[in-house]
Amino acid sequence: MWEQSRLIRMLGIRYPIIQAGMAGGSTTPELVAAVSEAGGLGTLGAGYLLPENIREAIREIRRRTSQPFAVNLLVTQEPEPSAEELQRSRGLLEPVHREMGLTPPELPVRFAPSFEAQMEVVVEEEVPVFSFTFSIPDQKWLDQLRDKGTLLIGTATTVREGELLAAAGVDLVTAQGAEAGGHRGTFAGSFEQALVGTMALVPQLADRIDLPVIAAGGIMDGRGLAAALALGAEGVQMGTAFLTCEESGAHKVHQEKILRGTEDSTVVTRAFSGKPARGIHNGFIQALAGREGEIPPYPVQNALTRDLRQAAARRKDPEGMSLWAGQGLRLSRRGSAGEILRQVVVEAEGVWERFREGKG
Amino acid sequence: MWEQSRLIRMLGIRYPIIQAGMAGGSTTPELVAAVSEAGGLGTLGAGYLLPENIREAIREIRRRTSQPFAVNLLVTQEPEPSAEELQRSRGLLEPVHREMGLTPPELPVRFAPSFEAQMEVVVEEEVPVFSFTFSIPDQKWLDQLRDKGTLLIGTATTVREGELLAAAGVDLVTAQGAEAGGHRGTFAGSFEQALVGTMALVPQLADRIDLPVIAAGGIMDGRGLAAALALGAEGVQMGTAFLTCEESGAHKVHQEKILRGTEDSTVVTRAFSGKPARGIHNGFIQALAGREGEIPPYPVQNALTRDLRQAAARRKDPEGMSLWAGQGLRLSRRGSAGEILRQVVVEAEGVWERFREGKG
Repeated sequence: MWEQSRLIRMLGIRYPIIQAGMAGGSTTPELVAAVSEAGGLGTLGAGYLLPENIREAIREIRRRTSQPFAVNLLVTQEPEPSAEELQRSRGLLEPVHREMGLTPPELPVRFAPSFEAQMEVVVEEEVPVFSFTFSIPDQKWLDQLRDKGTLLIGTATTVREGELLAAAGVDLVTAQGAEAGGHRGTFAGSFEQALVGTMALVPQLADRIDLPVIAAGGIMDGRGLAAALALGAEGVQMGTAFLTCEESGAHKVHQEKILRGTEDSTVVTRAFSGKPARGIHNGFIQALAGREGEIPPYPVQNALTRDLRQAAARRKDPEGMSLWAGQGLRLSRRGSAGEILRQVVVEAEGVWERFREGKG
Repeated sequence: MWEQSRLIRMLGIRYPIIQAGMAGGSTTPELVAAVSEAGGLGTLGAGYLLPENIREAIREIRRRTSQPFAVNLLVTQEPEPSAEELQRSRGLLEPVHREMGLTPPELPVRFAPSFEAQMEVVVEEEVPVFSFTFSIPDQKWLDQLRDKGTLLIGTATTVREGELLAAAGVDLVTAQGAEAGGHRGTFAGSFEQALVGTMALVPQLADRIDLPVIAAGGIMDGRGLAAALALGAEGVQMGTAFLTCEESGAHKVHQEKILRGTEDSTVVTRAFSGKPARGIHNGFIQALAGREGEIPPYPVQNALTRDLRQAAARRKDPEGMSLWAGQGLRLSRRGSAGEILRQVVVEAEGVWERFREGKG
């Protein structure tokens, strides 16, 4: 049934299911290892981690599994906003801070961990798979990783981005459909026009590049896996589906919102980070509604909202947390990561069984 | 292979492929009849037609085929804008008119054909299938149609809308994913949050209603058909895929834009009609960018932009035409409607063959 596709052979996994590398603490080493142990590809979402913490997490994953896994980074350049821009951006958040009884946001020393320093760890640790989003890392990094035998997965939200990734020499491409939770990976063109649904994006990308395509966005169960493979993908990436599992590090309040969410609970917003991302609509997004034009770019806004998000998390207040999630929320479920993965596999086999019986 | 699903039995068709009832002249009687003759369900997009023209078109379809077909209407109430509102709305369009060398838009006598008068024809003509969008017609109409043996298909963009349609007694529900071209059918809730991708919407809706679900949005070939059936739909609705066929009444310029379009050519805009709709980005959409809040609701804006759209069509100028289209544009193709339909069927069979051979 799960015959060797290129993707399965390349990644050395049993089932073509990749757990998304979500930044922000949800992809614990326990989660990554559990997915890989169950036959999928677990991914450490290391985008917000300091280099030493990435190293620690990788070693912890290796203690827990000998199966392949991936590390995901957000290709980010440290921005240089002017003092005036920063004050203006800070002013945008002051009313929200006041309402929450917080002092105005601190001006951060750095806006994001050093991408170069993060990459050094990924290269040194010789991880089996490196996936990335937001852009394409400098060729020097891709060369160094290839020298270490690390497989490369890039993220595309349009066909053109897929072609750029193929030209840069990646091994696989994730097609991030508009349904996907969290940050949009768009790096060439208009964010709005690059909100292409998974159903439309996957076949168009698969036609145009000669690399295995991984479908992402709205895939929560075996029906989604079977559909993605029908469209021409060789595998799927699932993020939201794993946020509610036992090994997930996502905040309990975030998990509850997902489990009670519906297909229309989410919006794409720049409010939390400065970069468009899909999450469950809440008070903070509402507070900045109509002022999206004033929000500074990623990672400036992301750094400026950190206090507020952390305060909300401590208070278990969903209205101030970034509740990243995709559009498949009614299909979310509890269980261990391994149980969820096995259910997805069994469900997909059920779809094929149905087709085999001629029930088109 | 194409075993009898509920949908196929109910509609009395051979393949679970429904040609979308696109308003605006593209769904000629030739197209509708060709799709039905080829084993799908052709649909007359009668939303903008006067009652007598609907009757004429239905009779022409019947001269061409004895197979089942559908008529689609847009559930619309005649609006009553104040003179002041109208002048303001007209003012919004004046600069565009000036730039095109046109006099300011005429104030229309009516904004849309009478929905009641349209319905009377649909009832009288005893059409096999009636599909609708934008809302749910009054129960009296649904009762009269049922008495005539007409099957009812409603359009949902969220699970809740599907549940409302089921409660109103429709026979089938179209799940309109965010990828779909043309007008959004959203009638209960936020348009933005109801932009749910097909991959996410279909399984969530299929889980919640006990009626056959028709997947729509981004489906252009047999891969899309197989994927939709995997997700739990019993059939697909394809619009854009039929706009470029020989029998299509779509403007040649519109067809060319589709054939040369890409997955990221479209946006959702209120510029043309006052109701969010997906079409290829162009000069007119750009001209109203940032002023969406000033655009009057459907069908007022639709009536006010009629002169402009017609002038652009006469001049073969795509920048002023409403180029409705979905997100699957790279998959569009030429051919007769029957050829396209048969290709889709053969491609879907190819996908199942692949699964049957265990190539997951």
